[in-house]
Amino acid sequence: MIERAEYEKIVERTLGYLKRAHIVITPEEAKNVEVADLGLNDIQNTGLQLVVYLNTARCCAKELILFPGQTCPQHRHPPAGGQAGKEETFRCRWGKVYLYVEGPKTQNPKCSPPKGSEQYYTVWHEVQLAPGQQYTLEPNTWHWFQGGPEGAIISEFSTTSRDEIDVFSDPNIKRQTEIAD
Amino acid sequence: MIERAEYEKIVERTLGYLKRAHIVITPEEAKNVEVADLGLNDIQNTGLQLVVYLNTARCCAKELILFPGQTCPQHRHPPAGGQAGKEETFRCRWGKVYLYVEGPKTQNPKCSPPKGSEQYYTVWHEVQLAPGQQYTLEPNTWHWFQGGPEGAIISEFSTTSRDEIDVFSDPNIKRQTEIAD
Repeated sequence: MIERAEYEKIVERTLGYLKRAHIVITPEEAKNVEVADLGLNDIQNTGLQLVVYLNTARCCAKELILFPGQTCPQHRHPPAGGQAGKEETFRCRWGKVYLYVEGPKTQNPKCSPPKGSEQYYTVWHEVQLAPGQQYTLEPNTWHWFQGGPEGAIISEFSTTSRDEIDVFSDPNIKRQTEIAD
Repeated sequence: MIERAEYEKIVERTLGYLKRAHIVITPEEAKNVEVADLGLNDIQNTGLQLVVYLNTARCCAKELILFPGQTCPQHRHPPAGGQAGKEETFRCRWGKVYLYVEGPKTQNPKCSPPKGSEQYYTVWHEVQLAPGQQYTLEPNTWHWFQGGPEGAIISEFSTTSRDEIDVFSDPNIKRQTEIAD
């Protein structure tokens, strides 16, 4: 649950990041910026902002906007509709993003999980993405990511998004945003 | 067939456009910019430049760069591997692009086909895309597009690309670039 005023403040801040990165969106897209607080009501620390360009039965493209130190918490995209889980590529466009995936644990990782939720973060193979760098995630594998000191804008290129079936390791998370008026 | 020196000049020019639009690519991507002269050896008028970010068995993302007035000639993406043809969305990032698709003929279209190849241009429903605007093409439908007065950069989000089976209406076209050393 996120208050309407807070939601609108976060949208404005998101638009500022896009402008700084010279990424143009339409007025309608600006109205539809998604603030995903994931039901935790702690958007400055946990959650992310999205602009969804398209999501058809075959493919999907979005911009993901992360504020400095903001964490998109650990989750995976399970198989659906007889197909493998969502295949997604993250391409950093601006700022820096730290991505954590399954694989050998990175010694001295750059990021810590949001306070109080450490137990839900179990994959520690770190991938650093600066502008122009990208990484393709295997379907249905655990991952989480955090914005660097300036935040980050990431283009996501993927197969169809089915956010409603995403599996989060933190059972307190609800993927659908609820706004309190 | 395109001369190596011309090819390299076109790559440099392409990198200038990306820089102007604040789109960052890696040094390796810069080395692999594709100049598609389509075998016509008339790249200033017919052809396009591409940076391919990814092309997996499920999805694909590219930047397409068009110089002012440069035309990507009429083609379609036929079904393959038991699937419908490539589904692609063009999102204008910078400049302006005029896209022509199947549908009611636009009166007084903004563009003309490259001289001498008029007969191969048969679809005339015009879609104008400015930065932030996008259009999704139905699989296997004819389309062509031309850069506006400043040129254009277009993000293409799509299912898998199989350039080698693209069908062009001009039988003189060869999709694979050949460079003369």
